[in-house]
Amino acid sequence: MQAGKPILYSYFRSSCSWRVRIALALKSIDYEMVTVNLIKDGGQQLAIIEYLEETRPTPRLLPQDPKKRAHVRMISDLIASGIQPLQNLSVLKQVGQEKQLSWAQQVISSGFNALERILQSTAGKYCVGDEVSMADLCLVPQVANADRYKVDLTPYPTISRINKSLLTLEAFQVSHPCRQPDTPPELRA
Amino acid sequence: MQAGKPILYSYFRSSCSWRVRIALALKSIDYEMVTVNLIKDGGQQLAIIEYLEETRPTPRLLPQDPKKRAHVRMISDLIASGIQPLQNLSVLKQVGQEKQLSWAQQVISSGFNALERILQSTAGKYCVGDEVSMADLCLVPQVANADRYKVDLTPYPTISRINKSLLTLEAFQVSHPCRQPDTPPELRA
Repeated sequence: MQAGKPILYSYFRSSCSWRVRIALALKSIDYEMVTVNLIKDGGQQLAIIEYLEETRPTPRLLPQDPKKRAHVRMISDLIASGIQPLQNLSVLKQVGQEKQLSWAQQVISSGFNALERILQSTAGKYCVGDEVSMADLCLVPQVANADRYKVDLTPYPTISRINKSLLTLEAFQVSHPCRQPDTPPELRA
Repeated sequence: MQAGKPILYSYFRSSCSWRVRIALALKSIDYEMVTVNLIKDGGQQLAIIEYLEETRPTPRLLPQDPKKRAHVRMISDLIASGIQPLQNLSVLKQVGQEKQLSWAQQVISSGFNALERILQSTAGKYCVGDEVSMADLCLVPQVANADRYKVDLTPYPTISRINKSLLTLEAFQVSHPCRQPDTPPELRA
């Protein structure tokens, strides 16, 4: 980080890359992007976000209060470990084409049931209170994945409301998969 | 935490519970255990470990240096998001009995290939240097899962060596699934 601009290896569609792009935008960190056609999914980008938080603490992506920090991490981990890995491309490939859609819908719905309940007790304007946190960086890309797999979001009013608020923020817009250098023309917006 | 003894809802076999039991043992935190027959797996227990680290900083489970911390988190997340969720009980149930074993072996081996390469550049006596860290808390329970699914560990000499060293430490022994209040007699050791 000290030696020159950081490089992000990014894939426009990857929810893991998107989380990091939001963090970089929120912290106004200038970086180079190297696009890769296929990204190894996984939650590892949370390590990048924690590193950014420690080396560039402003604005905070983790609240100061340990209990609130634990809420933020619990929500982030629920998404990054409990939902996203179960519906990433390599798993869906292993599941087989026929069952892919129902598998993805099942794991996302089951995760969103837990998430909706948690958010009902932690959320303010955003996932935990009224400040944008790491949990919000995880939420928006996961809701986009839910859309992609046609998950019915009506049972999740809190998730839907927070997602909508977050998408009005610039950091979430500039980092959106529809506006990346490797976004194919038919998916641009 | 301030109000009385913490309670851990634990399942003897869950690798996620085991990670937390190791952290509690290392930090000499007295707690009550409530055993539950079925635990919702996922990486959420990393949020508990980060909370313990912030409220009981001694001994450290994360190194002080931000780059080393990032290594510890990268390894922890690779296991907690990239491997464990793909081989937990609810996923294996969804995969179906016939393909369970080969699915579990495939996801663990593929994760261990990545992990072995990373450890070759980060490991000392343990996963990152010579101090026990959160990464080690994730490693040992995952290697036990690999054993359970009969994954051949010979291609992973670094993983095997670190696992063996860690299992000599008391915190890893008292927290072991074979010595929990809910361990069935035939699995005790």
